[in-house]
Formats: sequence, C-alpha cells, structure tokens
Amino acid sequence: MSSSSAAPAAKPPMRDALVAAAFQLFLERGYEQTTVDDIVALAGVGRRSFFRYFPSKEDVVFPDHERCLADMTEFLAGGGEEDEPVRRVCDAARLVLRMYAENPAFSVQRYRLTKKVPGLRAYELSVVWRYERALAAYLRGRFAGQPDGTLRADVIAAAVVAAHNNALRSWLRSDGKGDAGVAVDHALGHVQAAFGRSVHPRPAAPLLGPDLFASGGERSERPDDVVVLVTRRDAPLWRVVQEFESALGRA
Amino acid sequence: MSSSSAAPAAKPPMRDALVAAAFQLFLERGYEQTTVDDIVALAGVGRRSFFRYFPSKEDVVFPDHERCLADMTEFLAGGGEEDEPVRRVCDAARLVLRMYAENPAFSVQRYRLTKKVPGLRAYELSVVWRYERALAAYLRGRFAGQPDGTLRADVIAAAVVAAHNNALRSWLRSDGKGDAGVAVDHALGHVQAAFGRSVHPRPAAPLLGPDLFASGGERSERPDDVVVLVTRRDAPLWRVVQEFESALGRA
Repeated sequence: MSSSSAAPAAKPPMRDALVAAAFQLFLERGYEQTTVDDIVALAGVGRRSFFRYFPSKEDVVFPDHERCLADMTEFLAGGGEEDEPVRRVCDAARLVLRMYAENPAFSVQRYRLTKKVPGLRAYELSVVWRYERALAAYLRGRFAGQPDGTLRADVIAAAVVAAHNNALRSWLRSDGKGDAGVAVDHALGHVQAAFGRSVHPRPAAPLLGPDLFASGGERSERPDDVVVLVTRRDAPLWRVVQEFESALGRA
Repeated sequence: MSSSSAAPAAKPPMRDALVAAAFQLFLERGYEQTTVDDIVALAGVGRRSFFRYFPSKEDVVFPDHERCLADMTEFLAGGGEEDEPVRRVCDAARLVLRMYAENPAFSVQRYRLTKKVPGLRAYELSVVWRYERALAAYLRGRFAGQPDGTLRADVIAAAVVAAHNNALRSWLRSDGKGDAGVAVDHALGHVQAAFGRSVHPRPAAPLLGPDLFASGGERSERPDDVVVLVTRRDAPLWRVVQEFESALGRA
C-alpha cells in the first residue's frame, strides 16, 4: 500500500479513484441509494470512464476478482504432472486469500456491505462459483480417465472453496484481526488431509467389511504406494497385522 | 403424476397452470422475450394471481424449491442424536433429487433453459447456496463444541451439494435417461466414505510424519472407537505395528 515505490502502478489511478469514491458513497448513503452518476461526480470523471473499468455498479464492489481469476487460471495452467493435484488447488485458493489480505480494511468494509445488500450477495455467489469451476476444471483434467474423475474433481473443488471461505469469513467477521493466512492454511490442511494423495480413502473398495478395511489408497499418479487402514480401536493386534499384510498382497 | 388419486392436490391448479404457460412461452419465444403479462394471458388469470404464487419471473422457473427447502429443513430438524450426521445430510440432499426425478421432462427442459439464461443461472446459484446453508446449519449444530466444528460442517455440506449436483447434472445432460437415484447414491457414497464416521481422517494430528501416521479418527459422537492408519506400502511391518500401538496409547 506504499505510494513511494518506484515500480509502475499495476492499477490505473482512475480505476482506484472510482473504487474509492464508490465505497465512500456506499458507506455514507447506502449501496442502493448510490448511482453511477454519484460515483463519477465524486471521482471527477465521466460516466464512460466508469464503464470502461466496470460493466456495472456491482463490479466496482469486487474490483479485483477478474484479475484474481485470471491469476488463478494461469497458476493452475502452469503446474506440471509432478504437482499433487489437491495441493495445487489449495495453493490456487490461497491467491484469493492474498487478494483479501492485501487490504484488510477494504475487505472488511466490503464484507459488511455485501452482507447487507442481496444483489451483492448474489453477485458474490457467482464469483465464488467461477473460482470453484476454475479449480474443478483443473482437477478434471488431472483426474481425466480415472474412475469417478469428474465427481472427485467437483467434490474436492467445492471442499477447497468451502474451507477457504470458512476461514476467510471468520477473519472478516473479526474485522481483519489476526493472521488470515494461518487460518486459511489450517482450513485447507483439513481438505488436503481428507482428499490429498496420502489419505484419500477409496470408497468403492471396502475390502474387509465396514469396520476394518484396507484399500489401495489414492488412485492418481502413484496408485500403489499408500495403504489406508481403518480399524476399530479395540481390534486385536493380530487382526490388524493380518489385514495389513492382506491389503499389501503379502499374505 | 396420476390425477386419479383421491388425495387432495398438494399444489393449487392455478399455480400449475401458470408454470405450464410460462414454460410453453419460454420454449417458444425464449425466456427474456416472455413477460409476466404474456404468461398470465396464456394461463387466463390476472397479474395479481401470478404474484400471489411467484415473487418474480425467475421464481416460476423453480416452482418447487421453496417447498423442497422447507421439507429439507423439517427433515433435518426431525433427526436425533443417534443419526450419523453425514448420512443425515446425504439423505436430506436426496430430497432435492426426488423433486427433480418426479418430473424428468420438466427438469430437463428447465436445465436447458437455465444453461442459456444468465439471470436464471444466478438465481439457481442462490437456491443451491440456500440448500448448502441448510445442510451446514444442521452439521454445525451436530458438531457444536467440537474442534473445527464449523469448518467441518461447511466443508461436508459443500461436498454433499457438489456430489449431488455432479450426479444430477449428468442425469439432466443425458435427457433424464437412466436411474438418477443410483447415480446420486454413488456420488453421495463417495462423500460418506470421505467424511462419514468410520473413515474420517484427523487432519490436525499427523502424529507420525507425512507418510506414516495414525490419528484418533472421527471426533463426533464416538470419538475413540476408530483408528485411521495411513502408511507407505513399502513400510516395514514392525514400524506399522509400532505406530498402531502408539496411536492406541498402548505403547
């Protein structure tokens, strides 16, 4: 947020001025009561300038999502076969967090505004949907040809978005206090644990019954290196060993 | 869909007539080109009758979601402590599927319409969001006081909705052919396997490092009865036994 940097500004000043004027008016008068004419008058520019940057009044509330969506798509496209897919989409989701955390005061203001205005809530849902579809499209590509590939892709994308937003919204509700990054890392860790390569259970193959079974683990790039064993705590050790050996094909 | 039943009709005939007239016009002229006046003229009723049943033109496209949301909320509220929470939300999601499957031709028509009209897509996103929040609210109640309770609730609700919609949309894309129930059961089974009581891994406690760890398993009603052991396939047996014992607190 420093203005003394020698680097060229990434965002045109007029665009920033329009966002600042819009939020000043939204907070003073309310969102519905503010027109585009009011915004351009305060910013000292013409209507055409507004619409050059923002297709509608809703868009000025979320001025950075298009850039963030483009960054996310580029980040996902830049990955290779060696990237663990669930980790990659979690890292992609962190780009959204970074955008919010760049300017906590603005993000908290917008959060309060969005909660109050149903039209903005609907707009936000459509933005969240686009992030989710970007993550799902990447995962669908990575899981192509695998059993339940599109299902797994859609479920994991939704889980990543939900975890990210759970942490993000807690942070916004706390007025941007605390470290949003730590909270989001914790939430995304939950999803990685549930779906990432090492601990993804294989639902279709409860080889050993409902309470005690082993599976071949994750079926993606390295299908054979992990075994997930779920067992009752009171199972006798000999039985656990037997099932483990059996799952490995050693018995 | 039988009209010979002696039971009283659940939906008023005028409401059905408005939905039928609306869809006839949407398909003939397009959604945007059809006004509420056109719809009421074809149905032979006044504008006031339309708005008695539907707040807006969008609502006539999704005439049964309000009832379904109410049914879902009632179903969730009717559950007891003995219900496994993830299974309960999966069963709640099946109420939505049932609504679509009741009338495949109408559901397929609407799916095609929704894909073409951005305003309807936005409306549908807001409906999906309300289902997701109903499921999440139930899970937050069930997980109250547990570590990461709201996070787990939000992630599972999102995963259930994504799995349900993955199967539902495949069915709609196939023009309503095949058994939607079987497809949705399979998709929800995936979520239950990932998050249900028996196989929910405990992300926050990778006690034994990234490749070989044990955890206390699911932390809901019966926190201590399941152990999830994730191990490399090439791990020596002595190490697996050691870690299992250690996870049980026996060692």
